[in-house]
Amino acid sequence: MHPQPISWAAGHSIRLLDQTLLPLDVHYLVLEQVDQVAEAILHLRVRGAPLIGIAAAMGATLAARGSPTDPLAAVLRACDLLEATRPTAVNLPWAMTRMRRRARHAARLGESLHAALLAEASAIWDEDREMCRRIGEAGLPLIPEGGTVLTHCNAGVLATGGIGTALAPIYLAHAAGRKVKVVADETRPLLQGARLTAWELCQSGVPTTVIADSMAASRLRMGDISCVIVGADRIAANGDVANKIGTYGLALAARAHGVPFYVAAPRSTFDFRTADGPGIPIEERRPEEIRRVGGATIVAEGSGVWNPAFDVTPADLITGYITDLGLLGRGELERLREPAVPAPA
Amino acid sequence: MHPQPISWAAGHSIRLLDQTLLPLDVHYLVLEQVDQVAEAILHLRVRGAPLIGIAAAMGATLAARGSPTDPLAAVLRACDLLEATRPTAVNLPWAMTRMRRRARHAARLGESLHAALLAEASAIWDEDREMCRRIGEAGLPLIPEGGTVLTHCNAGVLATGGIGTALAPIYLAHAAGRKVKVVADETRPLLQGARLTAWELCQSGVPTTVIADSMAASRLRMGDISCVIVGADRIAANGDVANKIGTYGLALAARAHGVPFYVAAPRSTFDFRTADGPGIPIEERRPEEIRRVGGATIVAEGSGVWNPAFDVTPADLITGYITDLGLLGRGELERLREPAVPAPA
Repeated sequence: MHPQPISWAAGHSIRLLDQTLLPLDVHYLVLEQVDQVAEAILHLRVRGAPLIGIAAAMGATLAARGSPTDPLAAVLRACDLLEATRPTAVNLPWAMTRMRRRARHAARLGESLHAALLAEASAIWDEDREMCRRIGEAGLPLIPEGGTVLTHCNAGVLATGGIGTALAPIYLAHAAGRKVKVVADETRPLLQGARLTAWELCQSGVPTTVIADSMAASRLRMGDISCVIVGADRIAANGDVANKIGTYGLALAARAHGVPFYVAAPRSTFDFRTADGPGIPIEERRPEEIRRVGGATIVAEGSGVWNPAFDVTPADLITGYITDLGLLGRGELERLREPAVPAPA
Repeated sequence: MHPQPISWAAGHSIRLLDQTLLPLDVHYLVLEQVDQVAEAILHLRVRGAPLIGIAAAMGATLAARGSPTDPLAAVLRACDLLEATRPTAVNLPWAMTRMRRRARHAARLGESLHAALLAEASAIWDEDREMCRRIGEAGLPLIPEGGTVLTHCNAGVLATGGIGTALAPIYLAHAAGRKVKVVADETRPLLQGARLTAWELCQSGVPTTVIADSMAASRLRMGDISCVIVGADRIAANGDVANKIGTYGLALAARAHGVPFYVAAPRSTFDFRTADGPGIPIEERRPEEIRRVGGATIVAEGSGVWNPAFDVTPADLITGYITDLGLLGRGELERLREPAVPAPA
């Protein structure tokens, strides 16, 4: 049974699994206000590019609850606030663009703004769940019987509205009875691999081994890794991929050992307005994420730290893109360049 | 002023800085018994290949203190116990071989065993201090004015009997007034880079920035790293280097960006009886080092972990070896193949 990182709660409030407390503490928050959702995104209580888009879309609906004086203005303000929480993932502005359009459309037609936004947020979620399933099917042939997949960070149930992106083929292979195993990079600084990926895989019965990020090159040399699969926060038009810091070094190590390196992402992660990796803004996060771990201070006072949250893996290190349109090569990404934001029905 | 990780204390006991408590707690232990020294090595209270050799040599003298019934047998037992604490570094068996020979020689001549062993351990320490200085001088031309050196783990004052191996050229450049800076990988799982390297560099006034290991590839891409310098635990005859886990991935990333990658080590680290990297035994350490960090459990129950302490960097990724015989290329390592264990005087 997969955990449920987000859901609607009573009175159209939001029930959110606080991912900062995993794996020891499985605690759900009930969010009633837009700024609570913004806080949850900012502090990574909810994370993962697709799930951030879903959470922000659900969060925007909160601005239209009750009887605000100018509901459209309140929703547009909420979208601006939510969109400003994190700069790198493209799903967040994509979802906010959809919510703004739907809000303006409903206002023009005199529809219930809250009902329209609930429908749009639910549609974004439903579409993501379906995209996860398609990504899983597209990646399933890459997972051999008894194979081991190496992954970085968390691109699973806890990062999406469904069975994940990078982990989706693994879940489908496991469900199909293939004896698939996972090696998960712990993913410093915030340890999403150790805390989240290992937790959700164990919940689902997939045998998992956690390693420190710096062990991946040695593990790839051992020869037991069938392929590497990671998620993505933003993919530029040329196929360069922004993903959790450490992805780039992992891709270099995979290349050195001839291990295929796949990026799994729904079409909403592809940003054709950004030509290439250097054009993707990279969020730099608080130094305390490096300075402190598990409650202990680990860096000498007087030392500086550097804490970029993402890195860019160039397209030439990527074997293929596992998308909801199938497994695509670098030269086939144009197929994803359809209107990312459908006109409201 | 450099910190002093080990020294003689009253009555020829040993004063040891407990490195597991750094950077927050600067605490010294006084060791009176051989098994206390073995425990300190096993639990990394003292670490770094050269310093382990020195500590074990000093530890072996404790077996000859007072009036043991059969002092030679006690010393040989102590050497066996100490040599078994850690398998990868070659300095440890090298130092124990020297101490055994000196003990047997003193016993044959009817000399005071304790005095002979004190002299031998002090000689090992003095030679290491001198080797560090020579390594620093050999590496000094590699550090440009205003340059930044990237390093991994700790190969400094806290790892040797002197100013370190990898850090020695940096200390000499700093002392010479060059504005050298350091970027230090934090070095999971035991965080020697964050806890030890940043601490000792800050104590000496060298500007330091700590990064998570997985950020090194991105940092190398930024273009501000003059060179990478790391230490070594064992170097095989062909130039393959066993060093702290993560070194290999770092070397791959340095190669990808054309950044020179140097290994700094005294001749005692070169093991000509081991032909190449695959022949070097790699210590696998306790899973708890991955499962827990800073007092917190970070890995889901039910997940496995893998915790190799070292990896092997192939010689073809190494630009040069900074040794006490100067900066050597891969083809010049034969110059180090002199008798590693001098006959006792």
